[in-house]
Amino acid sequence: MPALTEPRWLDADQQRSWRALLRGSAKLFEDLNHDLERDSGLSLNEYEVLVRLSEADGRTMRMSALAADLVHSRSRLTHTIRRMESDGLVERSTCAMDRRGVNCTMTLAGFARLEAAAPHHVESVRERLVDRITPAQMRELGVIMAVLAEDAGSGESAPDGRDADARSERIAS
Amino acid sequence: MPALTEPRWLDADQQRSWRALLRGSAKLFEDLNHDLERDSGLSLNEYEVLVRLSEADGRTMRMSALAADLVHSRSRLTHTIRRMESDGLVERSTCAMDRRGVNCTMTLAGFARLEAAAPHHVESVRERLVDRITPAQMRELGVIMAVLAEDAGSGESAPDGRDADARSERIAS
Repeated sequence: MPALTEPRWLDADQQRSWRALLRGSAKLFEDLNHDLERDSGLSLNEYEVLVRLSEADGRTMRMSALAADLVHSRSRLTHTIRRMESDGLVERSTCAMDRRGVNCTMTLAGFARLEAAAPHHVESVRERLVDRITPAQMRELGVIMAVLAEDAGSGESAPDGRDADARSERIAS
Repeated sequence: MPALTEPRWLDADQQRSWRALLRGSAKLFEDLNHDLERDSGLSLNEYEVLVRLSEADGRTMRMSALAADLVHSRSRLTHTIRRMESDGLVERSTCAMDRRGVNCTMTLAGFARLEAAAPHHVESVRERLVDRITPAQMRELGVIMAVLAEDAGSGESAPDGRDADARSERIAS
């Protein structure tokens, strides 16, 4: 716990934005999850795993790379993958190059499940997100979130943050 | 499952924004959770429960109102509250007005825990969010998320959406 001087409390505007972010993102992901479960029997996490694998060489990724890509803890991903494996959507195997590594491969059934789910999911993403805000807001949301997706403390985050600001100025003007 | 015509796939810009939102929000909430656990032994969910209760009359809310406020399912909230109760941060009791209702009250220990956590948490929110984007982006993020926090299908969401668009035009110009 670092020693603190007087806390820099958020002002009223910042507080309102921060609470809107908590509530808006919770509602968005809750609703998208609900739609996906209803239409396709998948959680949003499971869907995102299938998307990543569908784009990978041999429809296979290292578990560690998958966890990093999805910003999931290793234990959370393992839990998700175990459920998907018992549903026959993915298979795990020891990595041939590195016996400590574990690969995750999408099955044909997994690919078919993703193909069937995708048209419904894109409608859900439009209804819950894209169609509710302006095109300029959608772009700006992407710019802001790309900044937040960077590692805060890394040497790369500052230049990227400046790029994002520059892009956002162009969009806003 | 509704009948679908040709799916309205996202274009490349929309796809990029949507993926940034998935990744940026996952990373933000993962990092905030990590900081809170480290500094105060609370999850972000637990912290938000304490904030809501601290602002309520008698530091007490109906479980149903708390769930709606936090956009949590009732079962997820019950899980969180059970853990907080065993830590002595909150207490549940039957609602005097309506025997089917359950009230949740913050204890003095809960309030002290929130007071101790708040200065660290606000620094974390600044470091992970507020200080990484411009003030204009912070405002615009709030405007966008306020739209997403509304119920999509309700009669109220359309006028609010238009208000938000109008506000955002002013901010962007």
